[in-house]
Amino acid sequence: MRIAVDAMGGDNAPKEIVLGAMKAVQAYKDLHIILIGDESQIREHLSNEERIEIIHTEEVILATDEPVRAVRRKKDASMVIAARKVTEGEADACLSAGNTGALMAAGLFVVGRIDGIERPALAPTLPTIGGEGFLLLDVGANADAKPEHLLQYAIMGSIYSEKARGITSPRVGLLNIGSEEKKGNELTKNTYSLLKEANINFVGNVEARDLLEGAADVVVTDGFTGNMVLKTIEGTAMSVFKMLKQTLMSSMKTKLAAAVLKPDLATIKGKMDYTEYGGAGLFGLKAPVIKAHGSSDANAIYNSIRQAREMVANDVAGTIKKAIEQYDSQTQK
Amino acid sequence: MRIAVDAMGGDNAPKEIVLGAMKAVQAYKDLHIILIGDESQIREHLSNEERIEIIHTEEVILATDEPVRAVRRKKDASMVIAARKVTEGEADACLSAGNTGALMAAGLFVVGRIDGIERPALAPTLPTIGGEGFLLLDVGANADAKPEHLLQYAIMGSIYSEKARGITSPRVGLLNIGSEEKKGNELTKNTYSLLKEANINFVGNVEARDLLEGAADVVVTDGFTGNMVLKTIEGTAMSVFKMLKQTLMSSMKTKLAAAVLKPDLATIKGKMDYTEYGGAGLFGLKAPVIKAHGSSDANAIYNSIRQAREMVANDVAGTIKKAIEQYDSQTQK
Repeated sequence: MRIAVDAMGGDNAPKEIVLGAMKAVQAYKDLHIILIGDESQIREHLSNEERIEIIHTEEVILATDEPVRAVRRKKDASMVIAARKVTEGEADACLSAGNTGALMAAGLFVVGRIDGIERPALAPTLPTIGGEGFLLLDVGANADAKPEHLLQYAIMGSIYSEKARGITSPRVGLLNIGSEEKKGNELTKNTYSLLKEANINFVGNVEARDLLEGAADVVVTDGFTGNMVLKTIEGTAMSVFKMLKQTLMSSMKTKLAAAVLKPDLATIKGKMDYTEYGGAGLFGLKAPVIKAHGSSDANAIYNSIRQAREMVANDVAGTIKKAIEQYDSQTQK
Repeated sequence: MRIAVDAMGGDNAPKEIVLGAMKAVQAYKDLHIILIGDESQIREHLSNEERIEIIHTEEVILATDEPVRAVRRKKDASMVIAARKVTEGEADACLSAGNTGALMAAGLFVVGRIDGIERPALAPTLPTIGGEGFLLLDVGANADAKPEHLLQYAIMGSIYSEKARGITSPRVGLLNIGSEEKKGNELTKNTYSLLKEANINFVGNVEARDLLEGAADVVVTDGFTGNMVLKTIEGTAMSVFKMLKQTLMSSMKTKLAAAVLKPDLATIKGKMDYTEYGGAGLFGLKAPVIKAHGSSDANAIYNSIRQAREMVANDVAGTIKKAIEQYDSQTQK
């Protein structure tokens, strides 16, 4: 199996990307990685070339670049080449920790949509208290969604959770402002019946306050709301930890107590760190495209590569394709 | 000044409502409170009747009642009588910790909208790390909003923050998934230019992750998104505190450290407790209608009464009415 990795994307590139790639090939003997980026910078950190190949390029898409234009014009950017390797059949999946919008554009224009998928969805796995995590989709690939899009998100998320994460009959919930069927805005009201009739384990509406408690394995929503919820979880956790830190550093007495609690507090922070679950998958494309978090360290990159590998090994894209074809033929579209 | 209080609404009624009312009349000598509910139950907790009057009724709207139907049929419910006292000119404002949907219906059908206001908004003040708090509207009075509704929310929130909370030239932000003007869904893209031209201190888009950092004093959004963000903040803070508690109770060593930190941790939890800022205001009605949190204790009720008093004393409803008339005449509506 071959995975193309953008070595230049993210806050800690290329160092942490290279370290993560080396860790991955050591862990999985069937894995071959193509690192794309500045060869001399990559070589600074590459201590073992076993099953790692480098494609040199000097062009890079920046975090500040306008996504669609960057992908169209910077044809030799490391991220664009990574996507092209997939299209050319030289890689089975690709990954980047760089500009999210640009990776979505590269996925859409270079890798391409599965026939019948109306909108791809960006889907991270977020933390739960119990440690199982839940898949949230969409978090921003498509701000204004229609009920049919949410139905496809539900099917794709369900297949991913079953195939790549090994969850039997994943519970699919519709993110809503109340648990009753009639609650919500126009979008959720019209989506409910579609999900109820679909061939998935639909558990009904789930509320935002129950997400971290593990209310469902797959949570579907429009990209605007999903992005809002993702950022609110991040922001609230960050603010609470910040207040905690200020408090713990406020006096000698609390500093001593903090020293005792340090490993335990790190454990809690670790539980909230969703890079443990891998990156965000861009679902609905012909091959796996993974967006690793911009602040990824080697371990987060390793987890994202592992995730891409699971998706390829278990043919998530092919299964989604078949499910959509089947659904379309049943509904005589 | 006279405030009508539903003594039977909320998880801790009537005890905490009665105690909160007594505290309020002691703090404000210009205050007269009408407690509405079961007289004998109210009297069990009422130790001082100074400037407190009781209206006896046995009918109550339950948390499980269908809101609109309950308000139409239970004409003698404590909450409905509280709203009616405002319409009849016997109270300047009303307050309940009961069924949120029913209070919104009572506000709309009994107290009534200000002419020119298209949709009332439900607006709590949420915590910030610095302790200033920010007003979020709407959190669910109106799930599907239009740009014109968000403009009115911005005007109402701005007036409330200036008049009742004493914030000079409150910073108004549009909740969005990016800070740039062109970002967002159809609703936010179309709202941006309206807010830019309005006679408010518009600071542009604000992102969910920056809310608790105090990104703006007034944050406007549609009711679906606002409710989602509110519940996500609550749920995330609750989950983090829960993990913290589990960790602190996990061994003798951590228990000892926890004992030292207890008062400081309580302070952090207190900072996240937004009942300190009062209840959620239902803005756009002819008189202040306040929804106190369902789990309100005496102190939260006291804060909500204080908030209603500030709104009456500073004529928030009258100022909103004038601002909307002025806006409508300027835009030749």
